[in-house]
Amino acid sequence: MAKRVPKAADVHDGGSRFRTVGDGSGIDNDGRFYREEIQLAFRNRGIFLEGLRYPITPTGMHYLLVHFDVPDIDANRWRLAVGGLVSRPLRMTLDEIKRRPVETLAVTMECAGNGRALLNPRPVSQPWLVEAVSTAEWTGTPLRGILEEASVRDEAVEILFTGLDRGVQGDEVQQYERSLSIEEAMRDEVLLAYEMNGQPLQPQHGYPLRLIVPGWYGMASVKWLDTITAIAEPFHGYQMDRSYRYSAEADDPGEPVSLIKVRALMIPPGIPDFLTRTRVVQAGPVVLMGRAWAGRLEVSKVEVSTDGGSTWSEARLGETTSPFAWRGWSYEWQARPGRRVLCVRATDGKGTTQPVDQSWNFHGMGNNMVQRVDVVVE
Amino acid sequence: MAKRVPKAADVHDGGSRFRTVGDGSGIDNDGRFYREEIQLAFRNRGIFLEGLRYPITPTGMHYLLVHFDVPDIDANRWRLAVGGLVSRPLRMTLDEIKRRPVETLAVTMECAGNGRALLNPRPVSQPWLVEAVSTAEWTGTPLRGILEEASVRDEAVEILFTGLDRGVQGDEVQQYERSLSIEEAMRDEVLLAYEMNGQPLQPQHGYPLRLIVPGWYGMASVKWLDTITAIAEPFHGYQMDRSYRYSAEADDPGEPVSLIKVRALMIPPGIPDFLTRTRVVQAGPVVLMGRAWAGRLEVSKVEVSTDGGSTWSEARLGETTSPFAWRGWSYEWQARPGRRVLCVRATDGKGTTQPVDQSWNFHGMGNNMVQRVDVVVE
Repeated sequence: MAKRVPKAADVHDGGSRFRTVGDGSGIDNDGRFYREEIQLAFRNRGIFLEGLRYPITPTGMHYLLVHFDVPDIDANRWRLAVGGLVSRPLRMTLDEIKRRPVETLAVTMECAGNGRALLNPRPVSQPWLVEAVSTAEWTGTPLRGILEEASVRDEAVEILFTGLDRGVQGDEVQQYERSLSIEEAMRDEVLLAYEMNGQPLQPQHGYPLRLIVPGWYGMASVKWLDTITAIAEPFHGYQMDRSYRYSAEADDPGEPVSLIKVRALMIPPGIPDFLTRTRVVQAGPVVLMGRAWAGRLEVSKVEVSTDGGSTWSEARLGETTSPFAWRGWSYEWQARPGRRVLCVRATDGKGTTQPVDQSWNFHGMGNNMVQRVDVVVE
Repeated sequence: MAKRVPKAADVHDGGSRFRTVGDGSGIDNDGRFYREEIQLAFRNRGIFLEGLRYPITPTGMHYLLVHFDVPDIDANRWRLAVGGLVSRPLRMTLDEIKRRPVETLAVTMECAGNGRALLNPRPVSQPWLVEAVSTAEWTGTPLRGILEEASVRDEAVEILFTGLDRGVQGDEVQQYERSLSIEEAMRDEVLLAYEMNGQPLQPQHGYPLRLIVPGWYGMASVKWLDTITAIAEPFHGYQMDRSYRYSAEADDPGEPVSLIKVRALMIPPGIPDFLTRTRVVQAGPVVLMGRAWAGRLEVSKVEVSTDGGSTWSEARLGETTSPFAWRGWSYEWQARPGRRVLCVRATDGKGTTQPVDQSWNFHGMGNNMVQRVDVVVE
């Protein structure tokens, strides 16, 4: 199937419905950003890197990507519909869902586009640098129990999750929706969550109910759930076939984005300069700290470089609090005066290590290139 | 006093400590943004404009500007010190502060730099468009009671508030600190707040204690309070004399930024395009809604234009929930097919109306030029 360039220029009724951002190729080569990207950066907030100090990210610090608008939902009138190829369609209130078996799970979630704006040339979209990751404790009910109660029929191959957020992306008016295979949807850890860090979901995090798919990039965890539908064919919606692909160029269908790749991040040491965020660090022993994660895999190793990636030393790994949450790491650095570039990289349980150089793709997905932190030691 | 250019280039030990952003003038002329601005935009989150639907902004949606890092504070060891020119210096635990008289007040807070990135040429700093405003219910104890207990001496002229956040701005290593005149500090509505929307402050909003100065731009509401000091001379720190000034050029000391100016914002109607945020609206009657505020003044009028500012019609004003919080407005629009630019402007109780064109200043402060919302009616 031919892919379209993911640009905002679009033809509608013989005219262009939206402004074109840049030259319309979807890619920028000169390293400066467009107003539309700034606008998205203000909507879609990242974690403060110093927020990596908390094993569970405070709710208001959790990264957030909202494709369209945060919908206005009256939970008293809201119902979750479970239908399609099921023997027993369901329609549940929030209270009914809360009366089902309860699970709480710490999950590290990361946006598939994290690292996009570090790519060169830069895919023009949500311009994440490295900050689109956080960990929360989600409370809800296992999806499997609901699918079993609805009794998914044998001819179903996927479960489709449709949110109430609606907008235009590419040329398509759409509600945000994505599917999972039956096998993925039936995994133990997949939740329908109504609490985050012990409180009802805030509107921007999917109130009243969202899907949580641990181990997957965040696009799978559909917010503001409206309907769950068992379907007979793989779903080919925009967010499956046109976005969230590892594509070499505009017309390359590529491969679907799925599980979170291995990555480590560092809490920038010392104190920041307001504008550049360059760090000023006092010479002497400095304990570098951060978090590392690898989707469904464990993190087997974290290494630190204090010379911009030329040499690497192993960091100490902390405990894991959940099989789907990041783990802490620390490294004692003897900081000597001068300019330094600090890097950190992690290796997952299968032996895959983060790349030092970029692995470019057209949509800027899954860029887990190592973080670089500029430091002036005095 | 001569002003320095607020650029990041700086000389330290004979060399440049930080990278220069742009040409070093502090101003950009070509309308595209620097990576450092994107980086700040991810740290310093705005409200979702659809979040204007809530009279009290959900905590995690509240706009936020953090100059340096969110400090790591152990509230059990934390103490508030009240000293300087007082007869009875105080040192209080959080529990002691919570046992004092309690007040809760809904306050609309706005960043003084809101609107900066709409200026042309653009001051290079935190690149707010229009989203740096929110309303929260703050709970705490009146500052006046504490100042009275400490007994501020007659020779004091200002009260200095020092936070625990530390970094570099301009060429100065500093903790964030600002002062208020005795008269302003003693006003009834000034609070030392430990709760936001009924919950303990989140780390990024000033935990365990922050100042709230209703009616002033947000820079006055110092977060992570450490010390309160009565002083004999006006305070000339960086955040008073070099930042937060209405200056015509780099070397102009200008006037200090203080109270919030009148402004209205609109919830963009219809549905958004993901990248451009252009709205698609169905033809027919559309109720436009939003909020308006004017610092310590009341909002006396809100007007809407559906033709890019050529003609204006009066909107209906809603109730005010607090003398320091925004009020709602609404306007019924008959949307006819085509491209439209929607604008809204408010007038305060003294008869001052928001400008349609920019009123430029060097630091990009207090730009309350009217919002423009691009809409395609179909």
